[in-house]
Amino acid sequence: MTSLVRVSCRQLRPRIADLATNVELSTAAVRSAIDEGADVIVLPELVTSGYSFASVDEVRSVAVPSSHPVFDGWATAIRDGRPSACVVAGFAEVAGDGTLYNSAALVDARGVRAVYRKTHLWDREKLWFTPGDTLPPVVETPSGRIGIAICYDLEFPELTRDLALRHADLVAVPTNWPLVERPAGERPPEVVIAMAAARVNRVAIACCDRAGTERGQEWTAGSTIVGSDGWPVATAGALDAATADLDLRAGRDKALTDLADAFGDRRVDLYRPS
Amino acid sequence: MTSLVRVSCRQLRPRIADLATNVELSTAAVRSAIDEGADVIVLPELVTSGYSFASVDEVRSVAVPSSHPVFDGWATAIRDGRPSACVVAGFAEVAGDGTLYNSAALVDARGVRAVYRKTHLWDREKLWFTPGDTLPPVVETPSGRIGIAICYDLEFPELTRDLALRHADLVAVPTNWPLVERPAGERPPEVVIAMAAARVNRVAIACCDRAGTERGQEWTAGSTIVGSDGWPVATAGALDAATADLDLRAGRDKALTDLADAFGDRRVDLYRPS
Repeated sequence: MTSLVRVSCRQLRPRIADLATNVELSTAAVRSAIDEGADVIVLPELVTSGYSFASVDEVRSVAVPSSHPVFDGWATAIRDGRPSACVVAGFAEVAGDGTLYNSAALVDARGVRAVYRKTHLWDREKLWFTPGDTLPPVVETPSGRIGIAICYDLEFPELTRDLALRHADLVAVPTNWPLVERPAGERPPEVVIAMAAARVNRVAIACCDRAGTERGQEWTAGSTIVGSDGWPVATAGALDAATADLDLRAGRDKALTDLADAFGDRRVDLYRPS
Repeated sequence: MTSLVRVSCRQLRPRIADLATNVELSTAAVRSAIDEGADVIVLPELVTSGYSFASVDEVRSVAVPSSHPVFDGWATAIRDGRPSACVVAGFAEVAGDGTLYNSAALVDARGVRAVYRKTHLWDREKLWFTPGDTLPPVVETPSGRIGIAICYDLEFPELTRDLALRHADLVAVPTNWPLVERPAGERPPEVVIAMAAARVNRVAIACCDRAGTERGQEWTAGSTIVGSDGWPVATAGALDAATADLDLRAGRDKALTDLADAFGDRRVDLYRPS
């Protein structure tokens, strides 16, 4: 585990139901992030497919298996440029039995290391996708232990807690945040939730959102990287990328004072099964 | 349950180890809040005793049982002024067997309705107090269902989730937040945590902090009331009181869209015992 890890969220604008364009777009983003020295690259949710589907047939037309060449393209970019790097990105997955999932892959120089199928499906995603039946993995990488969550997953503190208890150093979160109303001067509510999850768990969180508008759906463009102390260290805004160098070892120590510990003080004897 | 509930956090400055002064101070605060039409009055953690103890003997010198006249004083103030109101306040409790707890009482016109003994003790509190062995209660009142948490409890999302799942409309949080460093322009980190807890659980949260300095310990003076949408509606600042009229019924509906529900979408089949 290197001392400083460069995390970069590339806030892309995939084109709905256009796999070829999105393969090109995402691969170019991986290459450019690697050129900028990124160790961990996070891309949006459903980056290969777009989000605002009109029908399940449309989802199926752009869904890919985890053996699809798009992942080889990212792996090749990593091998060519920065062999210790990895990518976490969302994609519409079609499984061997034809089931459709809103998934995220962790890809390194060797190829796909892990696939996570979103367990908390948001709104109309329920019309297209089957929810995953397993909580997300935590993957050991040269940059540290990377946990995965996808968008709405983040709103369930059970999930972020679980990743942190399984020793995640960084939670990589491909998202598509639909723009919602918020008071003037406030961050997107999803960022507030990420900040709190980072702080109570002492884990860094990198959310990669989308920019632009798709079939009338405006996106928040809220990509934000939060340190394990809970404070944002980078936001994308109009730049469409958020990049920060993080000391991921900082969050491994859960001690808050000599007498207080964020994990040791949990009352596991009292918490109730849900 | 009335439609709008006036919640008022009175950010007092109790005097360490001076019970008589603190009884007077807290009772005056209850009276003044009632004069201002408060339905739910929240006072700081350990308001009857102060916080920065030098020894367990000092704690014992100001610890009181839940039958102490201070609570009758608050109940009388309620009966006299606003019989449907209630107070949630922290106190150093001595139990019948002499055990010391960092507790909070919910007091209404009839007297003490519930006592909660803090389950997550912060730092040096562990030198003085025994942790409680029961998660906090949710108390039915004319203003709605009030859950209790004390300060550091809030940093454990398991606890706020549990209160919300037990149908709390409002979580009343007596606190003593030691001032910690934060980036310029940011809210206290505890407020960020309260905002996220409110939003993911769709429950209002009223944190009553302290002001001033005690034996060198500077307090955050961060009292904040957060609506069930996760946005702050009142902060005390130099005013030393935060007051807001809340529609506590808003948080009872956990639906986020026609197809998404903050509670219904929880994956209770996957969450692991801690």
